[in-house]
Amino acid sequence: MGIPIEFFFDFSSPYSYLASEVIEPLAARYGREVDYKPVLLGAAFKVAGTRPLTEVPLKGEYSKRDMERSARFAGVPFVLPEAFPIGAVAASRALIWLADSDVRRARAFVHAAFREYFVAGRNIADNSVLAGVLRQVGADADQVLAAVQRPELKERLKAAVDAALARGVFGAPFLFVDGEPFWGHDRLVQVERWLASGPF
Amino acid sequence: MGIPIEFFFDFSSPYSYLASEVIEPLAARYGREVDYKPVLLGAAFKVAGTRPLTEVPLKGEYSKRDMERSARFAGVPFVLPEAFPIGAVAASRALIWLADSDVRRARAFVHAAFREYFVAGRNIADNSVLAGVLRQVGADADQVLAAVQRPELKERLKAAVDAALARGVFGAPFLFVDGEPFWGHDRLVQVERWLASGPF
Repeated sequence: MGIPIEFFFDFSSPYSYLASEVIEPLAARYGREVDYKPVLLGAAFKVAGTRPLTEVPLKGEYSKRDMERSARFAGVPFVLPEAFPIGAVAASRALIWLADSDVRRARAFVHAAFREYFVAGRNIADNSVLAGVLRQVGADADQVLAAVQRPELKERLKAAVDAALARGVFGAPFLFVDGEPFWGHDRLVQVERWLASGPF
Repeated sequence: MGIPIEFFFDFSSPYSYLASEVIEPLAARYGREVDYKPVLLGAAFKVAGTRPLTEVPLKGEYSKRDMERSARFAGVPFVLPEAFPIGAVAASRALIWLADSDVRRARAFVHAAFREYFVAGRNIADNSVLAGVLRQVGADADQVLAAVQRPELKERLKAAVDAALARGVFGAPFLFVDGEPFWGHDRLVQVERWLASGPF
């Protein structure tokens, strides 16, 4: 296996969800795995002085149309949830906790949480919804929900976000392939060329 | 021929240049022509509350890398000019003036101006550089440069920009295909699907 692809994302990011639905088969075709790393776009927006896409005048209206069309283009089911955007702090901490003991379950959780939010349209920032997602992947929901309230896990997510910002992650999805940065689900075509034939 | 593709762009936009190098052959494959329409991103940024890409913290550094890599990906020569961004008012007015009498020359001017700026790296906001571009396409440079200072042409560009903003154009390139909006050179893959098989 080559170096894993680092996939920085926010559970509240529609384009991260779209990319998450295709990145693993894409990576596998070139002998790579995917390392999912949560970021919090709110923190990135503060540093970059930007805002959630849907709140920008003109751009906001277009973006909603583009998200839906891009999902149809990719053949991926998608709804823009009523609660949008959300703070994905608890889900992000849960991911870190799960990854400690079982990377495969952590990966399944990424997909289950994204689909709960962007297909079923349910607010994964709500603890009872998040508990349902955790149970779907066979995790002990009570144990995980207790853990995400502990200072240690709060600190670890904060440190992970700071580390991402320090590496220049200002949006999501944000991928590093062999250290090369690619921002946006629309850069997956360039990611594929990189994987196929190296730096260009 | 089907309805022409409306191609809104700013002469100062690298991604507009990249798209301009491929949009005509793409359109022609599906029996379409391209209607080049100048906008001024400065005006759009004011409405949307955004900024030139390269001036946004974190995003700026990435963007420069992405422009160069995207150009290599597309096989299009590219340099980021020393004078960047520029106010493309004179070039935009010149385009409107040229299109009145000769659409083919206007189209040639778009490419010549873009290449002067993004391949040779010369500042097309400079009148002597712009005059050279006009001569390249067989236009009377003195006549055009005099015309772009007249109130009538100033008003027409202003009206064109206002009309673009009213249609939701907040960035560049911004295309309308059969009225459907597509923002960004990276949406050309979706434009192609639309041209090939209609709405999706």
